[in-house]
Amino acid sequence: MTTATPRHFRRAHRIRFSECDPAGIVFYPQYFVMFNDLLEAWVDQLLPDGGFAGYILGRRQGMPSVRIEADFKAISRMGDDVALTLDVAHVGSRSLVLELACRGSDGQLRMQARQTLVTTSLVTHEAIPIPPELRHALGAHA
Amino acid sequence: MTTATPRHFRRAHRIRFSECDPAGIVFYPQYFVMFNDLLEAWVDQLLPDGGFAGYILGRRQGMPSVRIEADFKAISRMGDDVALTLDVAHVGSRSLVLELACRGSDGQLRMQARQTLVTTSLVTHEAIPIPPELRHALGAHA
Amino acid sequence: MTTATPRHFRRAHRIRFSECDPAGIVFYPQYFVMFNDLLEAWVDQLLPDGGFAGYILGRRQGMPSVRIEADFKAISRMGDDVALTLDVAHVGSRSLVLELACRGSDGQLRMQARQTLVTTSLVTHEAIPIPPELRHALGAHA
Amino acid sequence: MTTATPRHFRRAHRIRFSECDPAGIVFYPQYFVMFNDLLEAWVDQLLPDGGFAGYILGRRQGMPSVRIEADFKAISRMGDDVALTLDVAHVGSRSLVLELACRGSDGQLRMQARQTLVTTSLVTHEAIPIPPELRHALGAHA
Repeated sequence: MTTATPRHFRRAHRIRFSECDPAGIVFYPQYFVMFNDLLEAWVDQLLPDGGFAGYILGRRQGMPSVRIEADFKAISRMGDDVALTLDVAHVGSRSLVLELACRGSDGQLRMQARQTLVTTSLVTHEAIPIPPELRHALGAHA
Repeated sequence: MTTATPRHFRRAHRIRFSECDPAGIVFYPQYFVMFNDLLEAWVDQLLPDGGFAGYILGRRQGMPSVRIEADFKAISRMGDDVALTLDVAHVGSRSLVLELACRGSDGQLRMQARQTLVTTSLVTHEAIPIPPELRHALGAHA
Repeated sequence: MTTATPRHFRRAHRIRFSECDPAGIVFYPQYFVMFNDLLEAWVDQLLPDGGFAGYILGRRQGMPSVRIEADFKAISRMGDDVALTLDVAHVGSRSLVLELACRGSDGQLRMQARQTLVTTSLVTHEAIPIPPELRHALGAHA
Repeated sequence: MTTATPRHFRRAHRIRFSECDPAGIVFYPQYFVMFNDLLEAWVDQLLPDGGFAGYILGRRQGMPSVRIEADFKAISRMGDDVALTLDVAHVGSRSLVLELACRGSDGQLRMQARQTLVTTSLVTHEAIPIPPELRHALGAHA
C-alpha cells in the first residue's frame, strides 16, 4: 500500500466519513490534513531515527508551509479508495517544494497541490538551513 | 496491523501531528475521530458489499452516538505507536454498545470509551431496527 | 450573546458547515471542539491577564480531561442557532467538574456532557494544585 | 466586530487552542476552516432568507473550491486576536473569486489566499450559473 524512494512517496487511503461534509464530499481543508499526514509518514521513513516527531519535538525544528497552490479537479466521496502521492520538486537551502496529488482508483486526478515548506527553528520561528540529516536523506549535497 | 472478528476489531495507528495540540499531546476530541474511523473500518469488513459508505450514502441509514463515557488514563504524544480496539459489548434491537480503547505499544491503557450507538433513518433521523445484514454480520439473531 | 459569572458561562453559536458530516448533522467529536472553545473563552474572562493562552503557553500548565460523560439527545443541523453553556459543578484541589450543554433556540436540550479536568504541569504532565489565580477567580478558598 | 458590504466582509477572531499544533501555532489547514466559516457568515448576510444552510440544504446547491493559492507570511499563536477578511475579486457566470486574509491586531498580514469557487448542483455535482438571488445580492447583473 505504500511505496517510497527518498523523493517519492505514495500511500493508499480510503476517504473517511470524518473527512466529508454535508455535501457528501471531502471538505477541502481535509485534503491538507491528509497531505500533512502523508508528509509526516514520508519524513518518518527518511529519518528512521526519530522520524517527524523527533524532528519536531526532539530537535525543536519545524517545517511550516509558506505557499500552497491547489487545484481541485474532481470530487472524492466517503468510501472512495484514493492514492496520495508526494514528489520532491525542488530542494533549496532552507526550503523544499513538494508536489502532492490525490488520484482515484482509476488513476483520475482528483486534486493536486504544490507546497513550499521552509525549515525553521521552533524556538525563534526563523528559517534555518535544511538540517544535514534531512538533506542527506534527500540525497542532496550541502 | 489489523485483526478482526465480527465483534472485535484492532488496528495499529501512529499518532499524528495533526491530532496533537499546543500541549504536544493528543487533542482529546481527536480520540473520537480516531474511534469513528475505527468504527468505519470495522463496518467496512462487516459489510463487504458497500461498507460504511454504502450503509450511510446508499441506504440513507445512520449510526449516531447517543451516549459516550470516556476515561483518559495516560497521555499520547505525536509519533507514538498505539493500538486502537473496538469490542461489541451488547447488541440491542435498535442499538449497539461498543467498548473502545487506545493502548501504547507497551500495552498501557491510554484511553477507553464506552459508546452507545443507535441505528437510524437519515430521512427521518428516527431510530430503526438494526438492519438485517448488519445484524447477520454481527452473528446476532433477529 | 455572551453571559458570564465565575461559575457560569453562556455563548450563542451558529452550527457551521465545517462542523457537520455527510448525514447533515453535527459530527459528534465537533461538540467537544465547541466545548473546548467555550472552556477557553470562559478561562479568558476568568484570567483577564493572559487568559487561556497565558495559562498554557506562559505558565506551561495544562487542563486535560480525565473523564467525560456525554448524552446526545437531539440532532443539530448546519445553520442552527444554539446556546452553549458551561457550569462549574465542583472545584476540587487538583480538578474541576464542568457541566456543559448545547440547547436549540427553543431551549430544547441537544447534547450535554459532564467533564472532569485536572490541572497539570506541561513539563511533567503530572497533576498540580489548581493555580491560586484560577482558584481565586473561581471564588474558591484554598 | 463584524463589518459587511455585499463584496467585503470582516470579522474578528481569537485564535483557539483547537486550531493550533504542537509547534504552538495555527495548523495551516485550520486557516481554510476559518475562511470557510467566514464565507458561510458572509453568505448568511447576503441571503438572509435561509443563509448558507438554506443554500446548501434547501436548494441542494454547493460552492466548492476549484483553486486556492495561499501565502503564509507570519505565524499566528493561540490567543492572538486577528481580523479575517473576505473581498470579492471577480464575479463570473458560474464562479466567484475571493481574496481572503488574516491580519494581526497590529495590521500585519499573517496569511492571504485567493480562492476560486464554482456554484454547483449537489445532485449532479456539475457547475450551474450563479443562482439569481446570490447574483442579485452581490449587486451583479445577469
